[in-house]
Amino acid sequence: MPGVRVSAASAGIRRRSPDLALIELAENSVTAAVMTRNRFVAAPVTVAREHLAARAGRYLLINSGCANTGLGAAGIEAARACCAALGERVGVGVEEVLPFSTGVIGEPLPLDKILARLPDLVDGLGDDNWGAAAEAIMTTDTHPKAASVLLEGEGGACRITGIAKGAGMIEPNMATMLGFVVTDAVLTREQADALLREATDDSFNCIAVDGDTSTNDACTLSATGASGLDLERIGEARFREALGAVMRSLAYEIVRDGEGATRVVTIRVEGAATREDARAIARTVGLSPLVKTAVYAGDPNWGRVVAAIGRAPAEFDFESVRCWIGDELVFADGERVASYNEAGAAEHMKKPEWDLRIALGDGDATATFITCDFSPEYVTINASYRS
Amino acid sequence: MPGVRVSAASAGIRRRSPDLALIELAENSVTAAVMTRNRFVAAPVTVAREHLAARAGRYLLINSGCANTGLGAAGIEAARACCAALGERVGVGVEEVLPFSTGVIGEPLPLDKILARLPDLVDGLGDDNWGAAAEAIMTTDTHPKAASVLLEGEGGACRITGIAKGAGMIEPNMATMLGFVVTDAVLTREQADALLREATDDSFNCIAVDGDTSTNDACTLSATGASGLDLERIGEARFREALGAVMRSLAYEIVRDGEGATRVVTIRVEGAATREDARAIARTVGLSPLVKTAVYAGDPNWGRVVAAIGRAPAEFDFESVRCWIGDELVFADGERVASYNEAGAAEHMKKPEWDLRIALGDGDATATFITCDFSPEYVTINASYRS
Repeated sequence: MPGVRVSAASAGIRRRSPDLALIELAENSVTAAVMTRNRFVAAPVTVAREHLAARAGRYLLINSGCANTGLGAAGIEAARACCAALGERVGVGVEEVLPFSTGVIGEPLPLDKILARLPDLVDGLGDDNWGAAAEAIMTTDTHPKAASVLLEGEGGACRITGIAKGAGMIEPNMATMLGFVVTDAVLTREQADALLREATDDSFNCIAVDGDTSTNDACTLSATGASGLDLERIGEARFREALGAVMRSLAYEIVRDGEGATRVVTIRVEGAATREDARAIARTVGLSPLVKTAVYAGDPNWGRVVAAIGRAPAEFDFESVRCWIGDELVFADGERVASYNEAGAAEHMKKPEWDLRIALGDGDATATFITCDFSPEYVTINASYRS
Repeated sequence: MPGVRVSAASAGIRRRSPDLALIELAENSVTAAVMTRNRFVAAPVTVAREHLAARAGRYLLINSGCANTGLGAAGIEAARACCAALGERVGVGVEEVLPFSTGVIGEPLPLDKILARLPDLVDGLGDDNWGAAAEAIMTTDTHPKAASVLLEGEGGACRITGIAKGAGMIEPNMATMLGFVVTDAVLTREQADALLREATDDSFNCIAVDGDTSTNDACTLSATGASGLDLERIGEARFREALGAVMRSLAYEIVRDGEGATRVVTIRVEGAATREDARAIARTVGLSPLVKTAVYAGDPNWGRVVAAIGRAPAEFDFESVRCWIGDELVFADGERVASYNEAGAAEHMKKPEWDLRIALGDGDATATFITCDFSPEYVTINASYRS
């Protein structure tokens, strides 16, 4: 994509390599960011916030293997030192560099290892390294996650490309993952902010693996303007839809790669009085450990789904709740429907990806939430990995 | 205990026996009850509420193996039919019988099997059957749960005895278990209501296995008055403390028997501005799957604990948070303390029961929450059991 170069390198922060990635944005680019809402905030998040408040951001420097969290002033200094060293190398001020880290909490950032590889990282900048960068930001992920669309417009085309990482600690509320999306469209900082917030709400804020939120979450949207096309020429609705598609695709990949996950379930709630109600119900069902173990077993244990709906922190008329597993209507009027075919529902639930639909009778609001099953491997992974 | 007789029988509702229990209270007894807050309510809960609103309650009839939930009018009729048949047998009105069920959701109550065993259940009523009754109400529990205290007072003694069941679907907010507590103290219905509510708040509402709430939860406190001692003669504070001890003991046993649990952790939050804040923090930590898998591993992964504190839905000053694993201070002033001895913390976490202490700097409010670890067996149990 014009206006952006990417590279990856192996600094030896962790066993798996590469573990260092760099995204270089053309001059006059803008970057918007949404960050973790956890009060326990990683040092790089604090530093990235400060830098982004002061400048537009030319370089995104990301390491995996170490979260640089819970280390007080030393952590902040380490994050700033990385930015300063890179800035010096490429000839920009320290505040033009935005640091991001993911990995183990509470271990000091191996600064020497990272600084030693910055020259290679800069020399390696190129057009075709998105795949290597997607790999460098992985932690317990089993595969790199990237998505891209091309938008042909009046007098040219623009692109939206994103990479993301995340497999555990995945929870709604802008949480628990890293995502970097770049477009060569011309956006103002305000436009980028608004577009990112909206797209995040419908993608990364609607997925869950385990309900835990991380200290390091961040998602950025950078616009280089290199295509010369602004929103008016691309069509704002079209751009919004394309950005949403890229981010939802990344979000879906994160759930599909959920730690120990063997199945992905898309939960659609409709007919709610408000969007918040719809989301609360979808989220409660999607995070229920009993629902998630039933999904693992492929067992149409609808009682657990309805019990989760019943305890959701939302306003709704329980009597009007209807629930489908795939196309099979399971529950209506407060009880299992007479026509319910359990064999059909069971067959549907054996699929690796399937739909759960919940209809209320309270209004027009809807929500979609993506979740995965809870397998014994989730426990095994998290009992042996230090996040 | 004077004024109460108990029995158990095997109706063949499930493979394990016994599966039917009966508690008979002397005339003029009072019974208070707290029930599930889930909107998806089991038929016996609806019927027990109705009966308790009309009469004082002389018989508690409990079955395991079938929850009688999600069956609409047929479920209500089945619960009423059990009460009517028992009432006829013992010569009381249908409303003097309170039905309770626990087990699989969505399967019809095997009415014939239950009705066939009512004569034996009545004939078997006796003083010494608390153990058999505690066994009869079990579902995935691995051991029966009972607790009892004797309170010597002026001119005599009174007793408080309770049984409970629960191993999965355990969550705060009066949820996810059955508990039946009987005392021979003289209590008014209002006193019983208030005492039960307070004791529930500090026992069953402060435990968690998986965060799911059930459709059938209920806890009752019955007072037969057979000791002739009222609160004034026993001492109200003393009675309250003894009732709390019985119910906390039952609650602790439920967590210790949590599905797949290998360790129990007592989380104490202190220095919060309000009790609600303290509870929200304790609950968020106690329900975090990442914390629970670290507990399973015996891994002092304090970053996960602090990240859970950081996302808790409470008002507090994060900068003043301190955290101890056993006696080992781990975290203060926003970072791991310099004196932290990981080996000491790890040794502490290998114990089957240990303490996690969280201190805030906002006030005097405290909360205690009991949780257990998340093991691969939790998934195995819930992937194979229909709750």
